[in-house]
Order: sequence, then structure tokens, then C-alpha cells
Amino acid sequence: MSMLETRYATLPASRADCVLLDERDPLREMRENFLLPPNLIYLGGNSLGPLSRAAAEQVEAMTRVQWGQGLLGSWDEAGWMEAPQRVGNKIGRLIGGQPGEVIVTDSTSVDLFKLLIGALRLREERHVILTEAENFPTDLYIAQGVADVLGAVELRVVPRAEVVDHLDESVAVMMITHVDFGSGHRHDMRRLTEAAQRAGALALWDLSHSTGAVPLDLAACNVDLALGCGYKYLNGGPGAPAFLYVPHRLQGAIRSPIWGWMGHASPFSFEGTYAPDSGMRQYLSGTPHMLSMAALEGGVDLWLEVDQATVWEKSAALSNLMIRLVDEQCAPYGVTIATPRNVNERGSHLTLRHEQAYRLMRALIDRGVEGDFRPPDLMRFAVTPLYLRFVDVWDAVGCLAEILRTRVFDDEKYPERTPVT
Amino acid sequence: MSMLETRYATLPASRADCVLLDERDPLREMRENFLLPPNLIYLGGNSLGPLSRAAAEQVEAMTRVQWGQGLLGSWDEAGWMEAPQRVGNKIGRLIGGQPGEVIVTDSTSVDLFKLLIGALRLREERHVILTEAENFPTDLYIAQGVADVLGAVELRVVPRAEVVDHLDESVAVMMITHVDFGSGHRHDMRRLTEAAQRAGALALWDLSHSTGAVPLDLAACNVDLALGCGYKYLNGGPGAPAFLYVPHRLQGAIRSPIWGWMGHASPFSFEGTYAPDSGMRQYLSGTPHMLSMAALEGGVDLWLEVDQATVWEKSAALSNLMIRLVDEQCAPYGVTIATPRNVNERGSHLTLRHEQAYRLMRALIDRGVEGDFRPPDLMRFAVTPLYLRFVDVWDAVGCLAEILRTRVFDDEKYPERTPVT
Repeated sequence: MSMLETRYATLPASRADCVLLDERDPLREMRENFLLPPNLIYLGGNSLGPLSRAAAEQVEAMTRVQWGQGLLGSWDEAGWMEAPQRVGNKIGRLIGGQPGEVIVTDSTSVDLFKLLIGALRLREERHVILTEAENFPTDLYIAQGVADVLGAVELRVVPRAEVVDHLDESVAVMMITHVDFGSGHRHDMRRLTEAAQRAGALALWDLSHSTGAVPLDLAACNVDLALGCGYKYLNGGPGAPAFLYVPHRLQGAIRSPIWGWMGHASPFSFEGTYAPDSGMRQYLSGTPHMLSMAALEGGVDLWLEVDQATVWEKSAALSNLMIRLVDEQCAPYGVTIATPRNVNERGSHLTLRHEQAYRLMRALIDRGVEGDFRPPDLMRFAVTPLYLRFVDVWDAVGCLAEILRTRVFDDEKYPERTPVT
Repeated sequence: MSMLETRYATLPASRADCVLLDERDPLREMRENFLLPPNLIYLGGNSLGPLSRAAAEQVEAMTRVQWGQGLLGSWDEAGWMEAPQRVGNKIGRLIGGQPGEVIVTDSTSVDLFKLLIGALRLREERHVILTEAENFPTDLYIAQGVADVLGAVELRVVPRAEVVDHLDESVAVMMITHVDFGSGHRHDMRRLTEAAQRAGALALWDLSHSTGAVPLDLAACNVDLALGCGYKYLNGGPGAPAFLYVPHRLQGAIRSPIWGWMGHASPFSFEGTYAPDSGMRQYLSGTPHMLSMAALEGGVDLWLEVDQATVWEKSAALSNLMIRLVDEQCAPYGVTIATPRNVNERGSHLTLRHEQAYRLMRALIDRGVEGDFRPPDLMRFAVTPLYLRFVDVWDAVGCLAEILRTRVFDDEKYPERTPVT
């Protein structure tokens, strides 16, 4: 959708303009669902999404009613057994998956381990995992561990711009994180998936920084495998379980190496020999972490209440505003923008670079503006349309500009970062 | 400790005796910490331990305060980062582990996968996983999956009584569940561990039905590797994270194949190459499931408040009483006891056998006595000293006897079990 056709055709030019836009925001009531601390502008949703009323209520019902009163009967009667699929299907609606193509289980690390081994074994005549050097470290670590345990697997790590050039007949799986955790750069999912498949490789996407951050349509992009995080933009709570996606066309072919009882075709028959469920349940391993699942379901439910086009329209306007304000107010003090300026090439967080990033972030947090720091010199700010207002962006950048102007970050209460040992 | 020396030298001979014993029970105040439904005798603690006030409060603090108000700062300020080790060390005190030998993470299935692969690679000149046919299915499934992914691994499944006979120079790891989920039979941990080590194998114990059920001293038994469940006798909530145990002497040698960022020596340095933490943190993979962790910590904390000797003394008396009452009141109707009569050879659940077990259990639950059914003909009842009273055992067996006597289970409201398809 062209920005000129939208309600945000002109970005606000003053704080009063922001207030006006917020009053007319079709998502303004959604903010009331989030239990944010007073006087905090929370820009850390790319790291840990905030608590919502829905999540708090789901956790309380799970704890006091379903567990406390229903006890073990709740596995059937409260729908616990179906929760991994139920919540998975809800996430499926946000990412363009069909019913029965997404399941919630374990962590992104464990899920990536399962899918990578499944992919390598499906393309057994090949031996390379292709990825980029900027990938999130845990993705690299998991792939290194997979290569170590399987043997005869090569992890080929190439610069971001050269991924397509390295797609050859040795590549079993291309493992890419859609939105970069550092810079916020977004890959072209359709183009890279096509390129991988043209080379005979499987395309595996990590959506941790994309789900709830940018529009996604896995089916339209013909993605082979994907996984993502529950505790960032889905607002599923600290350490929320992750989700994984396997399209129907690959469910018979991709096998998890972790043959847990919950993935068995008939877990409560207690048979001695493993036989995987024919659908997504085969990717479960142990008993699902229900309290963490409850919070995630609450967070995801809120996403299903909003019109997606409205969300992405507001998201683009918020981040475009932030970029303009940073250019105007912070660039003179040496702040640069590490994130692409084209909204279709970035995620939902903006990354600013400054040599004093660590101390700047401490000073910001002290003044009620929370983002996060990533070494060596990055400040990340998530621009999240469900609970952020235009005035929040206006005030946050104003606060940063004021800190830069007055150099309060030089104060001894903001010491240099202690090197990690 | 000899039963004759204890407060339970004589088992109660009447309901009034039970009431008296309960009044004098040094653990009687502990029951007040559990938020059990009124009018329910809960004997399902081997499947899902009940909610405690401590667990409910920890979950609420984690949700509303630490997540809701502290947001991402809680990773440091609320001690989230240390939680897997902190809760692990608390469990360590219950099982005879030293500080820094236990960590809480993932599920028993995933943890078993990690430890089995670690064990097989440490004993790389050997190729057999030795286990018994009665092991819990998920243990067998995980081992089958490990054999499938590694190749050249044999899963040797032998009858319970023949495990020692099959310990030879081909066995890399002996994988045994300490207390059988079905019959409740308990292995001799010291003897089997010694036998395995004499044959050069590693001894890996699944403590899912032992932790919080029977006295444990892993150090005294010189156990090599262990893992266990958080949601049974530890009362950690549905799908609580599991724990794993690696003694200091093996921490440099046993490597998890799942190289997640939380296991890295320095997770927040975001280095491109995996380097494991030197301690138990190396067995972490993804971000810990904090809401589920909170409930587990609440459950475990209660265990640390009680004197262990007092717990096991009461536990033995409760289960001895139940056995005697079943013999007297239910045996005439065809009920047999599948669990060993020697308290040192069983866990904390009693398993009764009857050809109408399924319908009997439905009738019991209707009358406020909750255990669980396991095919084909088993009824399981957990005898848990933290929240059960002697009157509960008395009344539960009385209820079962009454159902048997009146044959109400023949009523059409208790249909035959639908076969699992």
C-alpha cells in the first residue's frame, strides 16, 4: 500500500500532530490491553514483549483454575493436550500458514536443531548448511552443534550479500534469519526461497524478529521450513515456547530426531516402539510447558483481534517518524541509523549507532525510555504498533536528543560498559 | 530407619486412629500450603502434583511484577538469568547433588536426548544403550531416535531382571528409570550403578518417579548422569521444566549436542563460534521458560522446608497402611497389588490391578478420589506425605471397597474404555 494513500500520508510535524494522530488511531484501544508501567516508553518489545491483560488472565486461569482445581483432568478437559496445535494454528494465521502447519513447542534453539537435522537427512546426498555471518549467534551455534554430532556436514558461513552466490548442488539447507537481530535488515523471503529451491536446497527461515513485526505470508513465499520466537513481538512472556512451521507437503518427509512421547501417534497407548504422529504433533517432544504456553496464547489472541493491514500501516508510520526525528535531532551528535530506510527492507526495530551507545542507553533508561544495547555500539528500539503511540516516538527521540545535547551520559553515574569476561 | 522405632510403629486400626495420627503429624501444617479442591482426595501426584500457595505466588510475582513491571531488566534484576542454576541447586539438595551439579531446562525428553548423545560420544568405542523393556515409553522413544540419528548405535532392551547380565564391553550407557511408572518397582541404584561402572558403562538414571518420592543420594551411589521431572512429586506445575544432573567429575567430558546460546560461555558477547560454559550452564539450550520455572521454584521451595527423614517415615507409613487396607477390603473382589510390598523396593505410588480398572477409576473420580488409569488394567495412586493425611488413605480405600462391593462400576454411566486408535 502506498503511504500516500493512507491516513499517515503526512508524518506529524509537531507533538500536537502526534496527539491528534493517536486520537484517531484505530488501534488506540489495543494499548489499554497492555499493563505497561506508568511513565515508561517501552521500546524493548523486540527483546521481551510486555505483559497484556489477556496474558495475565490466561496465566491466572491456568494456574488457579485449570491446574489448581482441574488438576490432571485438565489435560483433557481444559484442552491442554491440544494447546500446542491450537496456539500453533493461531500463529499460523499471522504468518500465512495453513491449519495444521504450525505447532508451539520447546525453544527456538531446540526447534532449529530438530528442523536442521530433518532437513539434512531429507537432502542426504548433500552436506552443506548455508547461512550468513550476521545470523543470530544461537542459530550459528545450533548449526555448529548439528555439524559436530552428525559429522560430514559443512556449515558454510558467507557474507549477507553473497548467500545466493553460494547456493550450489552441495547445499542441503539454506538457514536464514528473516530480520537481522542487530541491524534490523530484512531479507527478501520470496526471492531467497526461490533461489534456494532452484539450487535444490531447502529454505529454512528463522522468524524470531519478524513474527508480529512485519507482514508474513509463508505459503505465498513457498517456504520449506520456519520457526520463531514467542516472547518478542508476540508478547508471550519471558521464555515463551517457540513455534515451528512445516508445510503439509513436507510433513511426511521432515523427521525430528527427538522422538518424545508427545510426538507419538498415540502417546497414551504407551507402546514400546516410536511411531510418529502424521501431522505437526510429530515435532513435539516432552510434555508442553503449560504455564508458559498460557501466557503465549494470551499474547497471540490479541494479535488476532486486529486488522493486519492497519497494524503494518501504523508500524511503517511510527518507524518512518522515528527515522525522520533521529535524522533531525540526533544525527548532528554523531548518531547514525544502521537500519535500512526502505520500510520493506527492515523489521520493526530501529538500530542506532553511536560510539557511546552503552552509556546513552543507561541514561535513556534512567529517563523512562527503554530500548536495549547490543555490543559494540548499537542501540535497538522496537517500534510496536499494538501499544506504542506517535507521542511515544516523539518523546523518546526528544529524550535521546536532550541527552546528546547536554552530554549527561558523560556523568560518572554512567560508567563505561564492563567488558564481558 | 526401622519402622518399629518410629511414631508409626503401629499402623492405625481405625479411622479414629488415623485422625489421631494426623493431629500429631509433624507435617500437618504443610498441607495448608496446597490449594487442593475441597472434598477431593488427590492421589494423582505421580502424574501432576497439585498447586501450592508458594507456586501460585511465584507465578503471580513473575507475571505481574517481574515481567509486567520489570520487563527485560528482570533478566538481571529479578535473577532470571540464574534461575536454571538456582532452582537446579535447590533440587540438588533433594537428590544428593553438590552445588553446580544440577540445572533446570527443557523437558525430560530433550534432556535425555542430550545426555544419551553425550554419553555415547564419551564412550565412543562402544555402541550399545542398555535398558529394560518396562522403561517409560518416552525413554525408549528418545533412545530409538538417538540410535536413528547417530547410526551404528544399538538399543538393547532386556527384561528388568536381566539388566546386569547384559552389561558387557559393548555397553556405552545403561539407561534406567529408577522407579517404574507402571508397577512402582524401585531399582537398587547403588548396585546397578556399580555393576554398570564395573563393565565400563556410564549409569544414566531417570528420576522422574523418584524425585520427591523416595530418598535419593546420587553422590553416595556415584551416579554418572541423571535427569527428572518437575511436575510430579516436586509439584512444579503442568509441563514444568525438567532437571538434569552431571557430577563435577564428568562436566568436562559430557557434551550436549544442542549448542544453544544460553549454554555459551558468554551468551551476551554474541560471538560467532560456540564455546560451552564450563559448568552446568553448558546444558542449557534456548531461553528458559520463566513462567513455568516460577511455578517449579515454588514447588521445590516447599520441599526444602521439611525434614527429609520425617517425610520418608510418613510416606512409608501411608503406603503401608494403604497396602494393608487394600488387602483387607479390596482383595476379596479381585484387586491385586502390583507394587512391591517392601517399602525399599517401591516408589511413592501404589499400583492396583483389576480387570475393570478403567471403570473403577471413573467411579472413584466421581466420588472424589482421584488417581489415574494406565492400560490395560492398572490403577495408580500416589501416596504423597506433604499433603495427604492418614484419613485420606483410609477413606480412599473405603471408597474403592464400597464401589467393588456394590458394583456401581457396572452402571452404564461407566462405559468400557474406548480403545485408542
